[in-house]
Amino acid sequence: MSTWSRFKKHYYQNADLGLALDISRIPFPDDFLAAKESALQQAYTDMAALEKGAIANPDENRMVGHYWLRAPKLAPTPELAKEISDTLATIKSFAADVHSGKILSSTGQKFTQLLVIGIGGSALGPQFVNHALGQPAADKLVVSFFDNTDPDGIDYVLASLAGKLPETLAVVISKSGGTAETRNGQLEAAAAFKAAGLDFTKHYVAVTGAGSKLEKTAIDQKWLARFPMWDWVGGRTSELSAVGLLPAALQGIDIQAILDGAAAMDVISRSTKTAENPAALLALMWYYATDGKGTKDMVILPYKDRLLLFSRYLQQLVMESLGKERDLKGNVVNQGIAVYGNKGSTDQHAYVQQLRDGVNNFFVTFIEVLKDREGASFDVDPGVTTGDYLQGFYLGTRDALSESNRSSVSITVADVSPRTLGILIALYERVVGLYASLVGINAYHQPGVEAGKKAAGAVIDLKLKITEKLKSSAGQTFTADSLATALAVPEKTELVFKVLEHLAANGSVKKTTNTPWFESTYAS
Amino acid sequence: MSTWSRFKKHYYQNADLGLALDISRIPFPDDFLAAKESALQQAYTDMAALEKGAIANPDENRMVGHYWLRAPKLAPTPELAKEISDTLATIKSFAADVHSGKILSSTGQKFTQLLVIGIGGSALGPQFVNHALGQPAADKLVVSFFDNTDPDGIDYVLASLAGKLPETLAVVISKSGGTAETRNGQLEAAAAFKAAGLDFTKHYVAVTGAGSKLEKTAIDQKWLARFPMWDWVGGRTSELSAVGLLPAALQGIDIQAILDGAAAMDVISRSTKTAENPAALLALMWYYATDGKGTKDMVILPYKDRLLLFSRYLQQLVMESLGKERDLKGNVVNQGIAVYGNKGSTDQHAYVQQLRDGVNNFFVTFIEVLKDREGASFDVDPGVTTGDYLQGFYLGTRDALSESNRSSVSITVADVSPRTLGILIALYERVVGLYASLVGINAYHQPGVEAGKKAAGAVIDLKLKITEKLKSSAGQTFTADSLATALAVPEKTELVFKVLEHLAANGSVKKTTNTPWFESTYAS
Repeated sequence: MSTWSRFKKHYYQNADLGLALDISRIPFPDDFLAAKESALQQAYTDMAALEKGAIANPDENRMVGHYWLRAPKLAPTPELAKEISDTLATIKSFAADVHSGKILSSTGQKFTQLLVIGIGGSALGPQFVNHALGQPAADKLVVSFFDNTDPDGIDYVLASLAGKLPETLAVVISKSGGTAETRNGQLEAAAAFKAAGLDFTKHYVAVTGAGSKLEKTAIDQKWLARFPMWDWVGGRTSELSAVGLLPAALQGIDIQAILDGAAAMDVISRSTKTAENPAALLALMWYYATDGKGTKDMVILPYKDRLLLFSRYLQQLVMESLGKERDLKGNVVNQGIAVYGNKGSTDQHAYVQQLRDGVNNFFVTFIEVLKDREGASFDVDPGVTTGDYLQGFYLGTRDALSESNRSSVSITVADVSPRTLGILIALYERVVGLYASLVGINAYHQPGVEAGKKAAGAVIDLKLKITEKLKSSAGQTFTADSLATALAVPEKTELVFKVLEHLAANGSVKKTTNTPWFESTYAS
Repeated sequence: MSTWSRFKKHYYQNADLGLALDISRIPFPDDFLAAKESALQQAYTDMAALEKGAIANPDENRMVGHYWLRAPKLAPTPELAKEISDTLATIKSFAADVHSGKILSSTGQKFTQLLVIGIGGSALGPQFVNHALGQPAADKLVVSFFDNTDPDGIDYVLASLAGKLPETLAVVISKSGGTAETRNGQLEAAAAFKAAGLDFTKHYVAVTGAGSKLEKTAIDQKWLARFPMWDWVGGRTSELSAVGLLPAALQGIDIQAILDGAAAMDVISRSTKTAENPAALLALMWYYATDGKGTKDMVILPYKDRLLLFSRYLQQLVMESLGKERDLKGNVVNQGIAVYGNKGSTDQHAYVQQLRDGVNNFFVTFIEVLKDREGASFDVDPGVTTGDYLQGFYLGTRDALSESNRSSVSITVADVSPRTLGILIALYERVVGLYASLVGINAYHQPGVEAGKKAAGAVIDLKLKITEKLKSSAGQTFTADSLATALAVPEKTELVFKVLEHLAANGSVKKTTNTPWFESTYAS
């Protein structure tokens, strides 16, 4: 349980940023901070090198430059600095031209809808910012997303855009240009535009890396515009590049304020005085709470509806950055910290029962927002507003958890504004970087993602072989076993079965159900 | 790694339900199922007693009757059976009357918008079903939610309803009628109706327990209608009571199909032959994967956008049911299983990096939906559709995880239909019940929630004392320390400080910032 003296001793508050950090409810002993100081100094040194343009992502031989996005002068070369500044200027002028009607749709209409097509790092940031800063019924463009390759999910979004495609601008975001889900979304949306009698190329904008497939397509098809992605910006730290800034600017959000907030946090969190560096303090708390090896989950509980998606954003940022098999020396370490959470006090009525009473395998990060709302509140009880209740539930849950020896940290911010989002994004980017140094891993690659993609490719290949075989064997029926044998892939019988069931359910294959189930047969 | 022979041996498939369960990728040894059989038989016995009306929630001295909601004849008394059937009939006729215009708003308009005001069990089910089965631009009523006491979050939803309040029906859901968040939402919405010149009572419907505060309010203010909640239905298992059925019916969803799906699953999952009971098999997998004590997290990955909120729904159902300090004998056990997840393949681009390479502290539940979409798909590559990609990513990720010895189960369903949702809801309700028996806990209470509520009440009381003291001390300034002393609550100085900061940020208190921060002063 925290005490006022412990709270006072460790409380970090920065009035300029409107940010505070309370680490008093992580039960680290008095000598912990001192014990980690030399490791932290090394982390500061690593970070300074990274910011100066070192190859901080050695596996991919890349610089890591997301900090330059909000302070272009810090980029390692004048050319890079100029590219960043020019891109920002282009984003702003493009958005202004869309808003003013200087840029119109293929039918000569003003754009009112924005369809963002991206996944992972190309969707979570834009979704988080859209939800946090959107003004229902007042956004300059209303934003929706394709963030998967689910055909029904695509139809769902298209249904919500029914009749509005003539006014819809589509931003396709893929750094590599080779992400299948995004490419599929791009093709599905194009088909919808065509079906509506529209020239989709006059509605499409690309955000992608130089020389990518997507860039080539955008050039060949003469899309409305292109914006760059750089190989020194990772997907999960790309919110302050064109990936996040373009959709936000189009929506009508003050992107310069986001950048300024991030830059201000960067200045603060570059400090090598640990007690004055909120990112360092938070990284140390992660280390203490999880024994530096992810022994506890991180539960993110923002007490503010607009921050609902922050936990999903952090889930990616933290888990994809820290969840690594090997450390930088090549030792198998199986690092990471699992992250989940939605929002308070709502989650209090969902799973806080387990947090308080159940398995103690987590620490909570509470996020408190001081400002209740625009405008005044009325009293729901004498002298008490809905906002007072919200704070009451936050403080009450925090106390209830402390009472049963569950750890928590609290971050307090002034409001949910563009500037504050920039501050929070930059804070967590820095925490992840410092923590990665503390545990000795590369936070900037994602080697484990390839295995799944490769295996998916093998499934697609198998599907093609299956449909080909069935077509060329008209009149013949196969069980999963006999088809796998006929295709000479008996070791893949399970996959053959799974693919056949999917094809049968979608009318591409005729299934005859038999008993036992594995005697069911399939034919073209 | 699974093999076809292991897959075949353990695969559960039910063609009538369109459901299959693959447990082959949980590495339980050959004798595990037999070893747990007698415990499972006891669980079946417990469950049979529960279904017959035993006091299965001893702490609250309550029956546990959510299974009767879809099979009223099984209710322990004819009176209960009739109440369930009558309520269902009333829900259907009320929804039909709203749709037909027989019931109109205070301005004589047809209702087109539905505002659901509830939290926890009174929101997560309706939100899940709304998102899973909604038809954008075709729902009979468009649904939105107040699910918190965040004033800005309330304003956000109200902004999306701007101009539409004359056509808005509000359903206020609170079993106890005493949930502060819901009560606050009810008052905030009423204020908005009044501000729009509307008689809110002609727009309000209550779903609540007999004799609750909310029922009294609804009677006194002559709300449009009231629907019952029963003390033998817990919030987290209330989706198939009026809590979930009323909003779904108003939206235009076939609620009878949901009920029929659940009833069909109940019949199957009552089987005492473990190999033929998917709920029992799944409960055993939870037990094996988590050592029967929550040592691993449950990651829920539905490969279908419409099932995005299923993981949040399950997070509540599982964690609030299983996350308990004590077992039924009173031993401290700190049980539970942490649940998180969003959807595939989207999450593959977020945190699957950690699942594959990082800390191995989880098992995955994949949910596969065989049907791709209404209507036909075109090829995004020769012979390959977006739906083929979705399946490819599911199977690829599953293989990639198996390769690195990460466990998973797969549930396959035919589609995302009302019937299938009923099947899934009933499946998981049964799994939770059986698992609770296996580990010997009461799955039907939530004692840990009270502590937070109580502590929140204390914060609200403190807030009132603070504002009173500041008002009665006009011209005087206080630090947090001096105010806590003046109020004779020095042990609460931290809370006093937190409350003061919140009041200052919302203009209720004047703050003078000093250095160090704890010397800052506050005055009325």
